[in-house]
Amino acid sequence: MKNEQYGLFKFLSQEEFAKVRKFAGQEKTPFLLINLNRIEKRYDELRENLPYAKVYYAVKANPNNEVIKALFAKGSNFDVATVYEMNQLLELGIAPERMSYGNTIKKERDIAYAYSKGIRLFATDSEDDLKKIARQASGSKVFFRLLCDSGGADWPLSRKFGAHPDVIYNLAIMAEKLGLESYGLSFHVGSQQRDVGQWDNAIAQCRYMFDSLAEKGIYLKMINIGGGLPSDYVQPTNTINEYAREITRFLKEDFGENLPEVIIEPGRSISADSGVIVSEVVMVSQKSRQNRYSWLYLDIGKFGGLIETIDECIKYPIFTESSTRPDFNSNDMREYIIAGPTCDSMDILYENKKYKLDKDIKDGDKIYILTTGAYTSSYSSIYFNGFPPLKVIIDRF
Amino acid sequence: MKNEQYGLFKFLSQEEFAKVRKFAGQEKTPFLLINLNRIEKRYDELRENLPYAKVYYAVKANPNNEVIKALFAKGSNFDVATVYEMNQLLELGIAPERMSYGNTIKKERDIAYAYSKGIRLFATDSEDDLKKIARQASGSKVFFRLLCDSGGADWPLSRKFGAHPDVIYNLAIMAEKLGLESYGLSFHVGSQQRDVGQWDNAIAQCRYMFDSLAEKGIYLKMINIGGGLPSDYVQPTNTINEYAREITRFLKEDFGENLPEVIIEPGRSISADSGVIVSEVVMVSQKSRQNRYSWLYLDIGKFGGLIETIDECIKYPIFTESSTRPDFNSNDMREYIIAGPTCDSMDILYENKKYKLDKDIKDGDKIYILTTGAYTSSYSSIYFNGFPPLKVIIDRF
Repeated sequence: MKNEQYGLFKFLSQEEFAKVRKFAGQEKTPFLLINLNRIEKRYDELRENLPYAKVYYAVKANPNNEVIKALFAKGSNFDVATVYEMNQLLELGIAPERMSYGNTIKKERDIAYAYSKGIRLFATDSEDDLKKIARQASGSKVFFRLLCDSGGADWPLSRKFGAHPDVIYNLAIMAEKLGLESYGLSFHVGSQQRDVGQWDNAIAQCRYMFDSLAEKGIYLKMINIGGGLPSDYVQPTNTINEYAREITRFLKEDFGENLPEVIIEPGRSISADSGVIVSEVVMVSQKSRQNRYSWLYLDIGKFGGLIETIDECIKYPIFTESSTRPDFNSNDMREYIIAGPTCDSMDILYENKKYKLDKDIKDGDKIYILTTGAYTSSYSSIYFNGFPPLKVIIDRF
Repeated sequence: MKNEQYGLFKFLSQEEFAKVRKFAGQEKTPFLLINLNRIEKRYDELRENLPYAKVYYAVKANPNNEVIKALFAKGSNFDVATVYEMNQLLELGIAPERMSYGNTIKKERDIAYAYSKGIRLFATDSEDDLKKIARQASGSKVFFRLLCDSGGADWPLSRKFGAHPDVIYNLAIMAEKLGLESYGLSFHVGSQQRDVGQWDNAIAQCRYMFDSLAEKGIYLKMINIGGGLPSDYVQPTNTINEYAREITRFLKEDFGENLPEVIIEPGRSISADSGVIVSEVVMVSQKSRQNRYSWLYLDIGKFGGLIETIDECIKYPIFTESSTRPDFNSNDMREYIIAGPTCDSMDILYENKKYKLDKDIKDGDKIYILTTGAYTSSYSSIYFNGFPPLKVIIDRF
């Protein structure tokens, strides 16, 4: 019986895989191959499904210049986390009006710098930050980030960002007094959020805040529904159509047909499935005679860009070459614990979840790690154990 | 009442802190300041306390050239994790006889390369790896890594490394048949191991392996007692004297007065307390009116080099400038949750453990993170959220 769960061709077309394999034959592993066509396709899909929403691509997900340029050409706006990202985009000729300074944790001098470069849209969630924005970026639009329960997300967001409604209410009033424009609200339901109902609660909370502040004469104009749209990892998710239909329904239930300005900040859902990491088996080993699992050591691990495997949060689809053979079936597979190549004990990718792979895997075999276009290369360590950062190859196919 | 637990001068002398403060006044934060004098002092202490042991410094702990050169000048040998580290050392003029290829996860071509450069001492723990060593490094010495329970370690080692005694027994016999020299055994009790008793069990297991293999005519000559010696973080540990005395007693109990060759691979215990990270407060915020904890956001976090705060494993001593005032006391403090500056929710340093710091902390205040000379700068991400990798300044004071 063919193991459908592990079908590589559920994720990549035959033609795409042929291209990946070609690079695998030429380049030294490990490397990340990004297919720009997919980035653009995901952007177009999102625009089709949420035509009323203004897209601010979350640069941090995949900050490669080629990715940014492709999205800019498509008309995307950008959510930047730091002045470093802002400078990168300015150098690419992207106007400051196309950017939002989305990090609520900012140094005062960085706010001043951003303002001097033309940034006029800032996220905030604290009095400390708001006062700095008021001092350095007078007249700018600010949006307030609501604390959001991110249950259901594979990469949940903690209490690190956002504040309770009572805090936000006071911040919005204070902002106007300080010469800023209380422009809107934002929330983030958690990355790789597989429960679309999470947007319902958050949007309802926005409605409540719009109304409460209107009583004070503050008329918010925007809702930033954040990121969180999932990509295709091992766990199943709904399609973008289903997410978009539900989110639109929630918005209309709370705000009627005349929606406020809606902003979305996709990162993972745009860039993740454009990427394939090609790795090589370094070693297969059996720890004891009794142990039924073998350890599979790859030439990439947590410190080479796969840090989202922490607590096995993100489960990447992983395949061998042989899994693409038409006759390959579950009798040809066995379960492995997968680990990286460094001397660090934390550098284990999956130990609780056992991956079923070719039972005859041997040193030097290529391993394809799919959906690795987001939150990988920019995370990779500078020099841990002497390994260089993850190489990135960008192409179209 | 003065809070002794948090006394900065328990970790640094007045003179050392004056020097740190001087750099803090000149350099843009965040940066890591390494004091080479401390590296040398720790090396000397270790040599004094374990005079019979050959030191192989674990390069991965702090691979800066200046650190390597200082230890080389002192007579240290080196445990390298990769051919990258090996090349770095060769370029510094360090002879291959001074190195051990300590990673049990190796590509065959890397073994061949190491052998071609003169490396003749290899760690192994699997048949797969052993056969590669036999093919590419004929005649070399190999030592076998025993799987070790690392209970009591703050940074425990998992089952990723080492194999059960029955596997090791067979490997040692196979190695000799394949033209290698079964030279010794290694184990690693886990990094920052605060329970010295862990060495007792491991050494006893070595004695048992020495005897079992002697019955087969294989006479092992070396025990590599690994790393694991702790450094001074928040949790108290015994002194190096106490560790050394106990380890020596365990060795003599099992091996008598004529010890085999003993190798030690210190990393953290040599380099950790040479380093201070100077950071700056980006923001202090209150998430809700009810919450008694404030959030303290620094300009360095998990992705800037502090990844060992995962699961709050390593608890760095953290201080403000004001904590060095003679009159500063617990009434001047309150508890904080500490987080990093990136847009990643995982980038929280300490949430369960609340750090007591100056209650009046404000943006721009300097924060001193001590004992950060090991497993920090080389871990830092290449470009996450646009932040550059951690800057390192090396000096003597």
